[in-house]
Amino acid sequence: MTDTAADTLLVVSAHAGDFVWRAGGAIAAAALRGERAVVACLSYGERGESASQWLDGKSLDEIKRIRRDEAEAAASALGAEIEFLDLGDYPLVESRDAVSRLVDLYRRVQPTVVLTHTLRDPYNGDHPAAARMALEARVLAQAIGVANSDGSYPGKADIIGAPPVFFFEPHQPEQCDFTPDVLLDITEAFGRKRAAMECLPAQKHMWSYYTDLAVRRGVQLKRNAGPNLGLHHETMGEAYMRHFPQVTSVLS
Amino acid sequence: MTDTAADTLLVVSAHAGDFVWRAGGAIAAAALRGERAVVACLSYGERGESASQWLDGKSLDEIKRIRRDEAEAAASALGAEIEFLDLGDYPLVESRDAVSRLVDLYRRVQPTVVLTHTLRDPYNGDHPAAARMALEARVLAQAIGVANSDGSYPGKADIIGAPPVFFFEPHQPEQCDFTPDVLLDITEAFGRKRAAMECLPAQKHMWSYYTDLAVRRGVQLKRNAGPNLGLHHETMGEAYMRHFPQVTSVLS
Amino acid sequence: MTDTAADTLLVVSAHAGDFVWRAGGAIAAAALRGERAVVACLSYGERGESASQWLDGKSLDEIKRIRRDEAEAAASALGAEIEFLDLGDYPLVESRDAVSRLVDLYRRVQPTVVLTHTLRDPYNGDHPAAARMALEARVLAQAIGVANSDGSYPGKADIIGAPPVFFFEPHQPEQCDFTPDVLLDITEAFGRKRAAMECLPAQKHMWSYYTDLAVRRGVQLKRNAGPNLGLHHETMGEAYMRHFPQVTSVLS
Amino acid sequence: MTDTAADTLLVVSAHAGDFVWRAGGAIAAAALRGERAVVACLSYGERGESASQWLDGKSLDEIKRIRRDEAEAAASALGAEIEFLDLGDYPLVESRDAVSRLVDLYRRVQPTVVLTHTLRDPYNGDHPAAARMALEARVLAQAIGVANSDGSYPGKADIIGAPPVFFFEPHQPEQCDFTPDVLLDITEAFGRKRAAMECLPAQKHMWSYYTDLAVRRGVQLKRNAGPNLGLHHETMGEAYMRHFPQVTSVLS
Amino acid sequence: MTDTAADTLLVVSAHAGDFVWRAGGAIAAAALRGERAVVACLSYGERGESASQWLDGKSLDEIKRIRRDEAEAAASALGAEIEFLDLGDYPLVESRDAVSRLVDLYRRVQPTVVLTHTLRDPYNGDHPAAARMALEARVLAQAIGVANSDGSYPGKADIIGAPPVFFFEPHQPEQCDFTPDVLLDITEAFGRKRAAMECLPAQKHMWSYYTDLAVRRGVQLKRNAGPNLGLHHETMGEAYMRHFPQVTSVLS
Amino acid sequence: MTDTAADTLLVVSAHAGDFVWRAGGAIAAAALRGERAVVACLSYGERGESASQWLDGKSLDEIKRIRRDEAEAAASALGAEIEFLDLGDYPLVESRDAVSRLVDLYRRVQPTVVLTHTLRDPYNGDHPAAARMALEARVLAQAIGVANSDGSYPGKADIIGAPPVFFFEPHQPEQCDFTPDVLLDITEAFGRKRAAMECLPAQKHMWSYYTDLAVRRGVQLKRNAGPNLGLHHETMGEAYMRHFPQVTSVLS
Repeated sequence: MTDTAADTLLVVSAHAGDFVWRAGGAIAAAALRGERAVVACLSYGERGESASQWLDGKSLDEIKRIRRDEAEAAASALGAEIEFLDLGDYPLVESRDAVSRLVDLYRRVQPTVVLTHTLRDPYNGDHPAAARMALEARVLAQAIGVANSDGSYPGKADIIGAPPVFFFEPHQPEQCDFTPDVLLDITEAFGRKRAAMECLPAQKHMWSYYTDLAVRRGVQLKRNAGPNLGLHHETMGEAYMRHFPQVTSVLS
Repeated sequence: MTDTAADTLLVVSAHAGDFVWRAGGAIAAAALRGERAVVACLSYGERGESASQWLDGKSLDEIKRIRRDEAEAAASALGAEIEFLDLGDYPLVESRDAVSRLVDLYRRVQPTVVLTHTLRDPYNGDHPAAARMALEARVLAQAIGVANSDGSYPGKADIIGAPPVFFFEPHQPEQCDFTPDVLLDITEAFGRKRAAMECLPAQKHMWSYYTDLAVRRGVQLKRNAGPNLGLHHETMGEAYMRHFPQVTSVLS
Repeated sequence: MTDTAADTLLVVSAHAGDFVWRAGGAIAAAALRGERAVVACLSYGERGESASQWLDGKSLDEIKRIRRDEAEAAASALGAEIEFLDLGDYPLVESRDAVSRLVDLYRRVQPTVVLTHTLRDPYNGDHPAAARMALEARVLAQAIGVANSDGSYPGKADIIGAPPVFFFEPHQPEQCDFTPDVLLDITEAFGRKRAAMECLPAQKHMWSYYTDLAVRRGVQLKRNAGPNLGLHHETMGEAYMRHFPQVTSVLS
Repeated sequence: MTDTAADTLLVVSAHAGDFVWRAGGAIAAAALRGERAVVACLSYGERGESASQWLDGKSLDEIKRIRRDEAEAAASALGAEIEFLDLGDYPLVESRDAVSRLVDLYRRVQPTVVLTHTLRDPYNGDHPAAARMALEARVLAQAIGVANSDGSYPGKADIIGAPPVFFFEPHQPEQCDFTPDVLLDITEAFGRKRAAMECLPAQKHMWSYYTDLAVRRGVQLKRNAGPNLGLHHETMGEAYMRHFPQVTSVLS
Repeated sequence: MTDTAADTLLVVSAHAGDFVWRAGGAIAAAALRGERAVVACLSYGERGESASQWLDGKSLDEIKRIRRDEAEAAASALGAEIEFLDLGDYPLVESRDAVSRLVDLYRRVQPTVVLTHTLRDPYNGDHPAAARMALEARVLAQAIGVANSDGSYPGKADIIGAPPVFFFEPHQPEQCDFTPDVLLDITEAFGRKRAAMECLPAQKHMWSYYTDLAVRRGVQLKRNAGPNLGLHHETMGEAYMRHFPQVTSVLS
Repeated sequence: MTDTAADTLLVVSAHAGDFVWRAGGAIAAAALRGERAVVACLSYGERGESASQWLDGKSLDEIKRIRRDEAEAAASALGAEIEFLDLGDYPLVESRDAVSRLVDLYRRVQPTVVLTHTLRDPYNGDHPAAARMALEARVLAQAIGVANSDGSYPGKADIIGAPPVFFFEPHQPEQCDFTPDVLLDITEAFGRKRAAMECLPAQKHMWSYYTDLAVRRGVQLKRNAGPNLGLHHETMGEAYMRHFPQVTSVLS
């Protein structure tokens, strides 16, 4: 359907890998519906999330290349495009320049839905930093008076609307003030998510971990959808939290 | 469409009048879509919300009759059915018997969406009391082991699912921890809501007040839907807050 | 050690089963340390948590007996004593009499640690009702001027101290304002917990569900204990939330 | 009265216009009491809040001049002085230099009351940025060891006291954690506020919008002041939120 | 001044003693200004707050008489009237009858300011119970359609307005969600508060404890009033929390 | 015991003095147990907390020297080492360089427990700034891929674990969202804390203030430990708030 096909998902991910574990189901489901999905990967997670490679004595450049290759394979398995901003991690430093590049990206991609990290994460400051930049750029990209990064001004068709923003589930949700607003059914998309997870061999223990989490969120999904459905474990879920109120013409 | 027509809206209202000011748009919109809408009116608001009639020297019975007639006219203008439980107000006393009657109602009506008051309202204790009973009855009505009020046990088809619950907007939202999760477009339904408000002549000053509020929520609705739509004031809105996470297969 | 052996754990559980899924590890660990553990089971969960038996056409009394037998077997597998108050469920009705019986129990058992449900649970009102009664009885049992349920007054040795209270993890933690304060290592006790779960055959699908949760809480436990421990999946955990500040002479 | 006349109101506004819609009543009321009122306008809102001028093809400098003229006219209509810091908007960038200029301003103006934006606003990051700078400068201006922006040190008479800070109402209060602590009666001052609003012709649709809001806050004001006053709609109000506890010698 | 003298303070206290430690300064200050102050003492604290008398082997009636005498002496020292409802404590049971008696009291006393306990106190359930009844009765007393306890209906002059409600400071403020909104200067009234405390000889250790607390709140009061006042320790304070927004015509 | 002696406490303090008033008991208690305690003092508090010296006409360098000497004496009285980073105060500016120096410090000291300020303090922005840097450096110091400040990479033994972080009590706890999670018994260590306080003669009025606070927290400590202990005032306490869940193998 043209209407649905016009939807575009933008995922702003602090590190290579985050978008797979936390939003892989939503990305794959969008792709399966024929929608465009774009991942903006702000860093490779080369310093903070690559301990085993450092212990193996690999160089910074080697690590970045490995993680980039893995992220590209995973994005491909999900059916998404991926762009790397290579901003560095641990810490991911917020800057005017980085935000400006994200403004360009928003205007180029024209997302109808945005996914990113929670604004609080005591275990990893890069995640809130990514979220703050994603949110700031989204507001700036709406304004016709805010220039692109090359100094030119946007035309009327370049500025973006107000796409809803969803935070995906952090590793320790309760410590991050993460209360799910939305339980997303990813049952059909889960095969792709699993395939994408398997593109990340260094974190093999996470494959079953995030499979279990999908089961757990699936159980909650069914429980919130009604007690009479039975608790068969095939439904898989992902949890999200809205940053803005939902706009709708039907309550459901 | 059969699918949509099968939806049924249940509104649990502490007093006659509450459902009009706070949820009239959602009710009328459901009716306009061909759905069934049922209002459970727990009291007439005969003691706490009928000051002018008391000052006129009317008796308790007269006041109850007047408010009942008004509420029936308003429900009719919205396109809804209405049932009166006559539990008394100021205070609306919670009881096992009242909850049991609500359990029966849930099982008879089989709602797919439920609307009620917020769980906090420092200005009127009847509102949270109504919400607590609405929520307790909803859980009890799901259980096949919980008897009906006549002592009989429900059949498998009698128990209900897990309809989503939305709190409608209280008079002083910030004092009631009311943060809108959902902004509902009631533009098409607003004519019916206005007509229903005009069935309540004793509170004439509220007509323009709730019209203004619908404008204000409409402005927010448009702002959350995108900056490029312009701020023309014709969109009318109502605000709601979810009690449970949304269950969906698409993020939007 | 005499000192440790003198500790006594009291678990106040709304339904037969709750104490197994949610606190089985803590109970078994206490028993393994040679401490006394007592479960106060307020109802059998005969109406709200026995859907399959009702569908099988069993009578109320049969269901209560089945669930009682299962709960006794599970408590035994954990190494705990169990007492049934048979207060009824769905709803579990709070009453002066029920609280008074709990006061007696506190004074008889003299717990040094108390476990119960969270104070908020939108999916099951019996859980907060159990918690409110457990907390009220704990305060009343401390007062020498509050009579026992038989009208006699307690002696100085009968009143209790101020045992810390921990809420165990609800089924949908984020919807219950459950933020873990304590991650408990139950690795050694997990075998007993698993055995206790297997005493509840009607909920077989929960066995793997709660095994997975123990893995997940175990991973968090290790992550909070330090990044250099590696993420081997053998550590099992349970999450708890304190109701009162911790009293200690060492920060750790 | 000398005592009252010595009071001075400082309003820190992110953009030209904010102080009119959100605090115009408080400013005009202060001026009507013979107090001094000073608006510190951090930017002209030239990029983020001037969409129609950009669409008309106006240049950045033209837009800044237009908005400056409007803001001066509005301040004059309210009876306030206005200073422009021209820090740029979208984004309003926080800097040591900007804070230092605000420290100078505090010391020169010696405000007894401060008004500014809320610390959270997901729709516009400039508002919290303005608030953070206003709050930081207020603390620094109190310290005799903190130099002025020209490097000189303040004398004992130059440092400021601890003026109370009030956040004015944002456009979408519930999304900004805005819970009114104070409902201000602006009935007498409303004529001036309306006149000031009419100095901003590009946002004509906002005139009635903020008039309606003043009515709504006026209704709440009366409701909080007592039910026996009747609900006549002539009382106009503005809502504020305190950042510090109120200091008083009488509870009222 | 007639205007001030017409003010009347109502303090709803769960136990004899609470009003002294927590609100003695506010009560004495009101009395010193020539205002009427009335304490509604819901119980004597005979079971939960009289441990030493129980240990001395005193009877229930003796304990109640002792505590009543002490409370009367303390009220007298503060300059307040006191009424005893003798509802029993530990637990203080909420009932329709008790609320109805409070409605009568509100209508008879016509308070312009109300003080009571916080709505949360994990150490003593009687405190929130007292607060809930005080708040419910305040709303019911406003309604002309709510009968007095003798069944008669109030006249127009009998119903009350909407007096502001302040929660006084609990023993463990942070565990009770107590965030001070108001710091009250009780320097002049402190002598009376100290004298009232000394009417409660069984809790002699509390005299210095609450004197220290008054110093600490006094220091905060000065710090919130401005850094240039110096930190001399003579200012004494009490902390309060508002339940409703402040209504005012001047920000200060 | 070797095990305990291996524990090391790191205290990150915004200004000279903060660590004495707020954490002196915990520091002295650790030293008394034979553990190492290290204070990282980010600034001398030379601008914002030295008003009397500025009024005396002292120079910036003199003030810094005075405060450094006092802080060294106080640390010595507590039994702690102290390091000064001299980052400047009012404002304490966050920077990559300052964080990098803290990363070095964490790796050198290998703390097993960390104490710092709360993340919110409306009275002093330096306190949250210190906390943010302490928390960020703690996470970075864990990563083997994050270089030391001299550009070299850490070895496997240099990276740190995940020491628990405790926030110490701010001057106005309720305004800083400070809810005590832990009440620490400092009775034995209080003599050293008092001696350390007396090393700060310019703030003599604080000596009794913080002695009173220790009494008050001691009373709460006993109340949380049990009602039957009696309220003798000799127990002294300090309050702390955890930033991460406690990891334990025993609930107590």
